Amino acid sequence: MRPKFSKRVSSKTLPPGTLVSTTDRTGEVKVTIIDYNESVFLEKQVRGVDECFELRDKPTVTWINVDGLNSIDIVAKLGSCYQLHPLVLEDILSIDQRPKLEIFENYVSVVLKMLSYNEKNSGLESEQVSLIFGKNFLISFQEKEGDVFDLIRDRLRNAKGRIRKSGSDYLTYALIDAIIDNYFSILEKFGERIAHIEEELVKDPSPKTVQTINGLKRELIFLRKSVWPLREVISGLTRGDTTLVKKETVLYLRDIYDHTIQVIDTIETSRDMVSGMLDIYLTNASNRMNEIMKILTVIATIFIPLTFITGIYGMNFKNMPELSWQWGYLTIVGLMFVMATTMLIYFKKKNWY
Amino acid sequence: MRPKFSKRVSSKTLPPGTLVSTTDRTGEVKVTIIDYNESVFLEKQVRGVDECFELRDKPTVTWINVDGLNSIDIVAKLGSCYQLHPLVLEDILSIDQRPKLEIFENYVSVVLKMLSYNEKNSGLESEQVSLIFGKNFLISFQEKEGDVFDLIRDRLRNAKGRIRKSGSDYLTYALIDAIIDNYFSILEKFGERIAHIEEELVKDPSPKTVQTINGLKRELIFLRKSVWPLREVISGLTRGDTTLVKKETVLYLRDIYDHTIQVIDTIETSRDMVSGMLDIYLTNASNRMNEIMKILTVIATIFIPLTFITGIYGMNFKNMPELSWQWGYLTIVGLMFVMATTMLIYFKKKNWY
Amino acid sequence: MRPKFSKRVSSKTLPPGTLVSTTDRTGEVKVTIIDYNESVFLEKQVRGVDECFELRDKPTVTWINVDGLNSIDIVAKLGSCYQLHPLVLEDILSIDQRPKLEIFENYVSVVLKMLSYNEKNSGLESEQVSLIFGKNFLISFQEKEGDVFDLIRDRLRNAKGRIRKSGSDYLTYALIDAIIDNYFSILEKFGERIAHIEEELVKDPSPKTVQTINGLKRELIFLRKSVWPLREVISGLTRGDTTLVKKETVLYLRDIYDHTIQVIDTIETSRDMVSGMLDIYLTNASNRMNEIMKILTVIATIFIPLTFITGIYGMNFKNMPELSWQWGYLTIVGLMFVMATTMLIYFKKKNWY
Amino acid sequence: MRPKFSKRVSSKTLPPGTLVSTTDRTGEVKVTIIDYNESVFLEKQVRGVDECFELRDKPTVTWINVDGLNSIDIVAKLGSCYQLHPLVLEDILSIDQRPKLEIFENYVSVVLKMLSYNEKNSGLESEQVSLIFGKNFLISFQEKEGDVFDLIRDRLRNAKGRIRKSGSDYLTYALIDAIIDNYFSILEKFGERIAHIEEELVKDPSPKTVQTINGLKRELIFLRKSVWPLREVISGLTRGDTTLVKKETVLYLRDIYDHTIQVIDTIETSRDMVSGMLDIYLTNASNRMNEIMKILTVIATIFIPLTFITGIYGMNFKNMPELSWQWGYLTIVGLMFVMATTMLIYFKKKNWY
Amino acid sequence: MRPKFSKRVSSKTLPPGTLVSTTDRTGEVKVTIIDYNESVFLEKQVRGVDECFELRDKPTVTWINVDGLNSIDIVAKLGSCYQLHPLVLEDILSIDQRPKLEIFENYVSVVLKMLSYNEKNSGLESEQVSLIFGKNFLISFQEKEGDVFDLIRDRLRNAKGRIRKSGSDYLTYALIDAIIDNYFSILEKFGERIAHIEEELVKDPSPKTVQTINGLKRELIFLRKSVWPLREVISGLTRGDTTLVKKETVLYLRDIYDHTIQVIDTIETSRDMVSGMLDIYLTNASNRMNEIMKILTVIATIFIPLTFITGIYGMNFKNMPELSWQWGYLTIVGLMFVMATTMLIYFKKKNWY
Repeated sequence: MRPKFSKRVSSKTLPPGTLVSTTDRTGEVKVTIIDYNESVFLEKQVRGVDECFELRDKPTVTWINVDGLNSIDIVAKLGSCYQLHPLVLEDILSIDQRPKLEIFENYVSVVLKMLSYNEKNSGLESEQVSLIFGKNFLISFQEKEGDVFDLIRDRLRNAKGRIRKSGSDYLTYALIDAIIDNYFSILEKFGERIAHIEEELVKDPSPKTVQTINGLKRELIFLRKSVWPLREVISGLTRGDTTLVKKETVLYLRDIYDHTIQVIDTIETSRDMVSGMLDIYLTNASNRMNEIMKILTVIATIFIPLTFITGIYGMNFKNMPELSWQWGYLTIVGLMFVMATTMLIYFKKKNWY
Repeated sequence: MRPKFSKRVSSKTLPPGTLVSTTDRTGEVKVTIIDYNESVFLEKQVRGVDECFELRDKPTVTWINVDGLNSIDIVAKLGSCYQLHPLVLEDILSIDQRPKLEIFENYVSVVLKMLSYNEKNSGLESEQVSLIFGKNFLISFQEKEGDVFDLIRDRLRNAKGRIRKSGSDYLTYALIDAIIDNYFSILEKFGERIAHIEEELVKDPSPKTVQTINGLKRELIFLRKSVWPLREVISGLTRGDTTLVKKETVLYLRDIYDHTIQVIDTIETSRDMVSGMLDIYLTNASNRMNEIMKILTVIATIFIPLTFITGIYGMNFKNMPELSWQWGYLTIVGLMFVMATTMLIYFKKKNWY
Repeated sequence: MRPKFSKRVSSKTLPPGTLVSTTDRTGEVKVTIIDYNESVFLEKQVRGVDECFELRDKPTVTWINVDGLNSIDIVAKLGSCYQLHPLVLEDILSIDQRPKLEIFENYVSVVLKMLSYNEKNSGLESEQVSLIFGKNFLISFQEKEGDVFDLIRDRLRNAKGRIRKSGSDYLTYALIDAIIDNYFSILEKFGERIAHIEEELVKDPSPKTVQTINGLKRELIFLRKSVWPLREVISGLTRGDTTLVKKETVLYLRDIYDHTIQVIDTIETSRDMVSGMLDIYLTNASNRMNEIMKILTVIATIFIPLTFITGIYGMNFKNMPELSWQWGYLTIVGLMFVMATTMLIYFKKKNWY
Repeated sequence: MRPKFSKRVSSKTLPPGTLVSTTDRTGEVKVTIIDYNESVFLEKQVRGVDECFELRDKPTVTWINVDGLNSIDIVAKLGSCYQLHPLVLEDILSIDQRPKLEIFENYVSVVLKMLSYNEKNSGLESEQVSLIFGKNFLISFQEKEGDVFDLIRDRLRNAKGRIRKSGSDYLTYALIDAIIDNYFSILEKFGERIAHIEEELVKDPSPKTVQTINGLKRELIFLRKSVWPLREVISGLTRGDTTLVKKETVLYLRDIYDHTIQVIDTIETSRDMVSGMLDIYLTNASNRMNEIMKILTVIATIFIPLTFITGIYGMNFKNMPELSWQWGYLTIVGLMFVMATTMLIYFKKKNWY
Repeated sequence: MRPKFSKRVSSKTLPPGTLVSTTDRTGEVKVTIIDYNESVFLEKQVRGVDECFELRDKPTVTWINVDGLNSIDIVAKLGSCYQLHPLVLEDILSIDQRPKLEIFENYVSVVLKMLSYNEKNSGLESEQVSLIFGKNFLISFQEKEGDVFDLIRDRLRNAKGRIRKSGSDYLTYALIDAIIDNYFSILEKFGERIAHIEEELVKDPSPKTVQTINGLKRELIFLRKSVWPLREVISGLTRGDTTLVKKETVLYLRDIYDHTIQVIDTIETSRDMVSGMLDIYLTNASNRMNEIMKILTVIATIFIPLTFITGIYGMNFKNMPELSWQWGYLTIVGLMFVMATTMLIYFKKKNWY
């Protein structure tokens, strides 16, 4: 979950618009085609995308979902079928894009980040999702197979809600909504971790806690970077710059705009809380340090003078009259006792222990 | 009062617009209907909301107040009676909304946060209030019964002020005003707590004070998050985007806009003050630490050399002429006294104690 | 000078527009009427405000100054005489308003904060001033009698400058100008206090200095809160939204707008300086602490090994040949001297003392 | 170079527009008149400004430069000659103005800050420069004689560049350009000082370094305050609100706008660097402190147990069999040596010294 | 890589528009001319730029690349050939420009910063690149020869991509794209260094690490300063203020606008991370300090009382009955053992070691 510092590294020496896959995931690319309208529903998994040409001209909504970005061929074919701009295809393949929106005459391109929480190394993982939608089609590209879109597929299959009655713009909305809903579950995990660390801070703080806090801080920076540009993307869709987004759908998009703001709000609040936790850790650490120093000081200031006195009467001078006194020893021990007690009372008063 | 990281958790796998209650409060839902104009006043508590249909078409203002969000049925019925958008109904039921304003052709939806101070665990509690108002109706939804709106009910009953002479927009204003007035009493409690902590800081600071300060800080973050979006909500109502808000009422709304700004101002000032308190605590802690270290240093630097001298004359060398001197003991004790005094004077000059 | 966390506390249960005095100052309300044009000048002090009706319709400029906000009756009468909106009257009486501007058709309402420096407890005091001006009248409300407006009265009496030749808008300008000029003298006092604390920081810093710095910080927050909204108020007056402000006066208002910016600038600079002072204090404190620790360390590291050596030769072993050597004592004392000198040179090199 | 907290202190009780000199510099006011066009060039130094009347009506460009603001008479005469607004004259004389721009119908008033670096007390000094230009005249006011404008005079005399061919607006540009060029040399001095302090930080940091850093910080705040409003001033001149600035000149003004941005950028960067230096100082100080504490700890933890052992065998118990052993002494000394070595190895491993 | 505090130092006393070279690089200036359209391609290296006149009037695109800014003559000749404004020529030669865009009627001037990473002193180096493009020409100025543009030359030679089919605006885009792509490789190096420092922080933190972190921080400030204004530059090119940028090219420019935002985002994230690293260092340092202090305290608080007891029985009082007891020695040693154990258990419980 380190921020990546590279753009299309390997395509650097190539002219813009040259298609190069930047994903490091391999495996077969999976293409699923769903073709539907209110009455018709067709779903099939294909190897190539040659069928897209015939589907393109049908009035039904065609959703082509591509899992895996390592097949340049498929992307190129879809690009030529739906006449997509070379830069759009390049953006789909280079996986370090910022969330962004590009509105063209016949289609709209939306790039998003899908986040998932890797339980193994308890780190965030980011995956790029590109959505290209036009009058009666939507093409979605994911880096790997995921289950977030399965809910939408179910709804399509079962004709639940408005989804079968609406066009490709509503389908786009449904997919973005699924991704943003997923952010909320990520945030929930964050919430649990924050609560866990807070407990740790009170019960058993250790230098490792600081590292955990810092890791959390960094993941929040990363999360924020993924979500922040989404505001503009979604508000761009609602602004009415394209007729591809119908008026009814704008209302739904405004709803997910609110959700995005809510996600950003929660991220900001979490950042504030995480910063506060570092303060608490440092204050606690300094408090414990002070406690320790106080005890050292109390012990040292009591015993150093007493030890000095024993040093005096340990000297080997011939002529030390006190040494021969009958009660000399008891007197000195008594004196030391009085001194220690006085100091203890003094320190107690000063509230030192 | 922890920030919640979930949106409509249970509705996640459902298509948008599906009504799911997210409140964790149970108990019977209480519906109160008040129907009034300048001369007529009718108030009754009902079980269902079937009466709303006949009231809808009457010219009098109808205020339907719903306490409790666990009855999806009631919300759905009201929605169908007043033809509300499914997303509006969903917002009413999902209680983690940000304050927001949605303007539709025939009605306006306002979502607000009502805050209350829980004396038991001295924490803030937040409750969502939704207000839907149209030409001659206002529907308000609260999570639980509260007394903030009772003042408005009294005014309606007694026909105090302009309220009976005005329409549903003025009633909306009155309700929002009651909620914002409530913020001021919350802030007053904050003011008392800040004053209390400040006193504690001066008189008896303890590591627990830091925790209290941090709790306060977090509650202020939470409060800010609840109030900040209100600015936009209220300024949206005054902007004249809807004819449902009459021109006379805009003036009143601008008044509560000023109050909102004042609340935000006070929150910001409180945040500054709370931050300052942490600085004071840390400075005080470090000052006390320095005091303790100084005393340790003074004691140690005085007695360590003296003890060394006693060590010298405690050695068992055969040939130590000083030991046999008549006044050896007294000379050495005198020397030690002179050393101690010199050091004390030196430290006094250096302003160490 | 604590920030107040209450709005119209006592009026909370009352409908908006109900007049309630929130001032805690008592004493008789003093009303002064000045009626003038270029040739005429009339000044008198009255008990009631019944005269205002006849003055209202005269073409001369009428300035009604009300000192004291505890007479609801006077405010209500003036309100009915000049047909002021109930919310305006409520704002005049509730003394925790933010500076604000309300433009009505026939009059303009300006709420400002007048600051004064209380020499006794060296704290800022804030007083609310409301100015209502229309075509040929200006009504000013103050919480208590003050001398800031006396300068304007003098100018009116002596017909100094343009004031007698101009209308009520110029008089409004003159009053606001007097208030802002007063801010500069407040800032001058702040400047003196900052200079004083800086001197203290260098000469004799104490934990109390931190408290003074924090007090200053808080007063600057308070001051900022009072002045910041003034920008909008004055720029609102110059924007030409009302014909009550003549074009010639706009130039003068722009001049005090510049002054307001200058006040805000100076406040921001002062805040930066005060923050810097806390840094200096902490750095100084930590430097002194380091000095003390260094001395402790030097003393301890020199004497601890030496004392150990004396301990060795203080042991009572039967068979310790060194003890019987002729020069054993001197050798050991010499050795200790060499050790101490070596360490001193080492510490000197390390730049420890 | 302390920020000043006073505005027109002495004029406070006077009506606005009353001319009062606020400069504390005395000495004779020097007036220089340069009158030129492409072919004509006239330069003379005058006592009064009575000549201005005849020059005013000539088509040649007249540059009247006034060094010294202590002659109200000259300012007033120029004001009446060129029909300047009283507030403009007041601004010229009150030397604590913020840089500002006022556009009138027949002339434009620009107030700037000229900065100079006082080598003696190594502090910044600020001087107010006002430029009033109209169709064929430019009047410049400085607090004291300076050499920044001499370069422009030279160019005028020698007819270098476009200056003689252009109007008063280009002359204004040339003067502002000279002032901003001067800022760069100020910044260069700052750069040298920052480099100097950085070297000091690495080689020989002392508490005094912190004071120098803080002084620098404060001067940068002051510098920023002087330069920041210049952005608006110059962008105001380029916006085309006045026909007095010709289109060709706008290009040149945009050039100095870029320079202003560059100055602001450099100031911000310097502020970041100075803040970083304080961090470095504190980190270094805390590192040195840690080093010292480590050495104390190593010495103390090695010798305290050893001294304890010598204490044991220094006890005078009758029955201590070890004391009579043949090799008792050597055994114990050997034991102590082993202990010390073990601890040293342990501390070495822990990387303590 | 220190920020430079000088502008055209040597040209300060000269009128604006005077050409002075501010580069400190010497060596021969290299001029390369590439003239092309879809079918024609001509590339040659020339000494002077006299050929430009004939190329100017041909319809082919002419790219004149000038490596080295120390020849005023070449710049002046090109300026007169293409009728460039003197200020543009001045900007080309003064190498401390901020990235900026100037749109003229017949040409557009773009100033950029090319960054390179100097492996030797691991510091950033900045080089100014100016691009002037008009209808059928592009003139590029670099401070020294670089290889970033070679990729573009290759594409031109091989007629790869759209570049030979497009005009000078597309060539401009290609050059800016090459420069921004270069930023990504710079950021990659930063990423490696950040990762390296983080490892160092965990494994072997030293005061030198802080210096490295601070150096990184400063370079990020510098980088940010170079990249930030680029946003405006590129968005200015896409805004359509000039017809010299064709509509097809705007899409490509918007693509590099996105890249710029991405660079800025990464810089901001890196800054956050670097700030976090300083926190980690300080927390670690303070933790290590605490560990050391704890050990000192444990050792001291255990042995100081024990040593005191040995001191007691080392006193030479005649009458100390314990000394004659048979088991006195063992009793005391046993007592000391019990005390030490008790304290160790107590400290263990307090979690001190």
